[in-house]
Amino acid sequence: MRNPQLNAAGELTHLLSTDGLPREVITQILDTAQSFLEVSNRDVKKVPLLRGKSVFNIFFENSTRTRTTFEIAAKRLSADVINLDVTRSSTSKGETLLDTVDNLVAMHADMFVVRHASSGAPYLIAEHLQRIGRDDVHVVNAGDGRHAHPTQGLLDMFTIRHYKQDFSKLKVAVVGDILHSRVARSDIHALVALGTGEIRAVGPQTLLPSALEQMGVRVHHDLASGLADADVIIMLRLQNERMNGALLPSAREYFRCYGLTPAMLALAKPDAIVMHPGPMNRGVEIASEVADGPQAVILPQVTFGIAVRMAVMSILAGN
Amino acid sequence: MRNPQLNAAGELTHLLSTDGLPREVITQILDTAQSFLEVSNRDVKKVPLLRGKSVFNIFFENSTRTRTTFEIAAKRLSADVINLDVTRSSTSKGETLLDTVDNLVAMHADMFVVRHASSGAPYLIAEHLQRIGRDDVHVVNAGDGRHAHPTQGLLDMFTIRHYKQDFSKLKVAVVGDILHSRVARSDIHALVALGTGEIRAVGPQTLLPSALEQMGVRVHHDLASGLADADVIIMLRLQNERMNGALLPSAREYFRCYGLTPAMLALAKPDAIVMHPGPMNRGVEIASEVADGPQAVILPQVTFGIAVRMAVMSILAGN
Amino acid sequence: MRNPQLNAAGELTHLLSTDGLPREVITQILDTAQSFLEVSNRDVKKVPLLRGKSVFNIFFENSTRTRTTFEIAAKRLSADVINLDVTRSSTSKGETLLDTVDNLVAMHADMFVVRHASSGAPYLIAEHLQRIGRDDVHVVNAGDGRHAHPTQGLLDMFTIRHYKQDFSKLKVAVVGDILHSRVARSDIHALVALGTGEIRAVGPQTLLPSALEQMGVRVHHDLASGLADADVIIMLRLQNERMNGALLPSAREYFRCYGLTPAMLALAKPDAIVMHPGPMNRGVEIASEVADGPQAVILPQVTFGIAVRMAVMSILAGN
Repeated sequence: MRNPQLNAAGELTHLLSTDGLPREVITQILDTAQSFLEVSNRDVKKVPLLRGKSVFNIFFENSTRTRTTFEIAAKRLSADVINLDVTRSSTSKGETLLDTVDNLVAMHADMFVVRHASSGAPYLIAEHLQRIGRDDVHVVNAGDGRHAHPTQGLLDMFTIRHYKQDFSKLKVAVVGDILHSRVARSDIHALVALGTGEIRAVGPQTLLPSALEQMGVRVHHDLASGLADADVIIMLRLQNERMNGALLPSAREYFRCYGLTPAMLALAKPDAIVMHPGPMNRGVEIASEVADGPQAVILPQVTFGIAVRMAVMSILAGN
Repeated sequence: MRNPQLNAAGELTHLLSTDGLPREVITQILDTAQSFLEVSNRDVKKVPLLRGKSVFNIFFENSTRTRTTFEIAAKRLSADVINLDVTRSSTSKGETLLDTVDNLVAMHADMFVVRHASSGAPYLIAEHLQRIGRDDVHVVNAGDGRHAHPTQGLLDMFTIRHYKQDFSKLKVAVVGDILHSRVARSDIHALVALGTGEIRAVGPQTLLPSALEQMGVRVHHDLASGLADADVIIMLRLQNERMNGALLPSAREYFRCYGLTPAMLALAKPDAIVMHPGPMNRGVEIASEVADGPQAVILPQVTFGIAVRMAVMSILAGN
Repeated sequence: MRNPQLNAAGELTHLLSTDGLPREVITQILDTAQSFLEVSNRDVKKVPLLRGKSVFNIFFENSTRTRTTFEIAAKRLSADVINLDVTRSSTSKGETLLDTVDNLVAMHADMFVVRHASSGAPYLIAEHLQRIGRDDVHVVNAGDGRHAHPTQGLLDMFTIRHYKQDFSKLKVAVVGDILHSRVARSDIHALVALGTGEIRAVGPQTLLPSALEQMGVRVHHDLASGLADADVIIMLRLQNERMNGALLPSAREYFRCYGLTPAMLALAKPDAIVMHPGPMNRGVEIASEVADGPQAVILPQVTFGIAVRMAVMSILAGN
């Protein structure tokens, strides 16, 4: 079966996951993002690459922050952006997801940015578009269930490349609730594709998926050993709903074992960078001293995220 | 009394209803829409006809789909579009509808697209604008109660003309809950104005208004006789709230009697087209085989709807 | 300590309050607004002064009307406007207000329009921006708690200057619930700064703050004496939640004592103007005959409000 993200010529036609994304395509996105970084620093922060295109933000799961980043990226490309509040729309009147998609395609949509609580919803849309022969309409996965959040994965790769250049020499530690994290999954697939020297997954047994080692990831249940000599530390957000559940004793206990404190950070390389996808739970997975400290690159991640999303949209639109 | 939709020169100044809309005005809208069809196929889907105009979507009744079609149409005309979530606004603080309108006029609004659960609300606004002498501000009715949904009526006429040309030779069947349908009402008035050969209303006694025959509409309670030899079939959405009420036994029973199945469709002319305003209740008023079949023109209706709304806005703005 | 609204050169860098705003800055804003009045009357109501700038409406407290005025003002300046529905965003996931601000700054925000139920929230953001050295990012207070609503204060000054020119000769009466009104506070500070001849606060003992007289305001508990010979009457909205509380007997009783009726208005100068920030409670603080009468300038206030907000944004952006 053909990779659903690529067209017959091997070009990116949807961005659904970093899983299966060829290294050259990832590199193309990061290189394009590099050229967009400068646009956001201009006095007039706009380029006309998507002028007259209709981009639909379809968020079945509410996320003001992620929607905002895509809306800004699309507007800086001069697209017309339409936000659909799908929780209040026809789908709640019993219309199916694909009927909604067919309708928007009939309105000459050019791109769908889709967030959904169910894994696979963006794939479903992409497959449907292929079935009806509309390869001029593109899907960007803005997070689906526990499955993937590829633009976050790509902006994380952009951040690492920006500060550390050569992936082959790096030790990268992903710390926290990897089991439930689409960010972790997207990061790990991209790190593998880019030939990262050593990838570590750090967290309690209950929050690590079982298949990690088959992907070449080294598992650490002890934070100290997981951080030892690391170049890059990617902290994950602990979802509120996990904090007092069966998998974890309490937020306080979690911080004691897996919270990134200055003392723990000192175990990594002196020039290690600290990343976090946001929003942060200060005092749960990360101490404020670290979050606001000199090794944190959490806000640059946000800046790079706009450039990466502009790059993805621009490439999909055929520029 | 003057037709409140036309100015002293007989030109369209508001679009409130297809009732009382002269044939020449309908034809002018359809001809203008024809010229806009091509804009949505361009690489840059924009024309500057409403540049610098402020269009307000005032939806007292929630409808993501209809709001989206107007928002896209306005943006493709380069207007500034402001969506008011009126359920959360000053009107809920006790301000009257006309105070809200006066305020928006004072902000130099150019056009109001109004949806309201009460029949007549857009008329009320149009009359108020006439009273305060602001004939430069225009109202488009985007659906008021059971009364009218004129842009849906006009896009339905566009669709019929596109596939069938001459209205005088056509048998058009409108099927379903006509009593509660503003779409049916708007369609029937427009079909009459355009000189349609034969107009049929098909549905159970409880869901047909009494005055149909005075409008020249032929009433059928039997679906088979209503569809016999028809050129055009307009299926209506069965509102969820009717499905288990006093007027209808059940959705299942409704489908058995009035659902459009392939067998029923075979009674119409072989080249009959099937229309539906959406969102569809598959398996209630229409079978999926018909909805997705070769005679369905339901998605083209959506495409034509954008062009028709662009045409209405452009004409109202004086182009 | 430096005035947080002005930069080292004494230029406006945030608009937080009319308290402490120098007379020359107020005059600069009013003069600039005068030049923008004409833009909203053009056929193409747009100037490119904020093209490519990203303006974020961050409304922690819902206000469709105020958000709309800022959105229109920003769009007529050609800015990209992003509305954040903060009640549904990351702050509800436990992120702090300043983390949210840091994130938006990292996305290259140029301006924040902030509404908050707590007094001081916009100051907090402005101070934070100063601390992180980002004097290129600007804050406009769109209403914070009972504290300030400076653009309303400035548009009220614009209105008075438009109709009455010289402030030094005027008697201005502010009538109603001054204790809970950020509008009243912003008006009084601006009236003082502009050298108004006589400022009166009119209302029941329970709804007047104690410090008024130290600001040079004359207190009247009797409406008739408060209105006698006035040039300008600023009516305040009586909040619904006050109407049946401990501070007031009832809305009916309030109207009897403090409602502006034609008879009461006749006590003021014959050419006195009547203002109201909206939305009005007709029959509570103001009679409909007055609200719709020839002395009311309530709708011109709305028109001037767009021009004043355009002026503020344009000056902050460095034009």
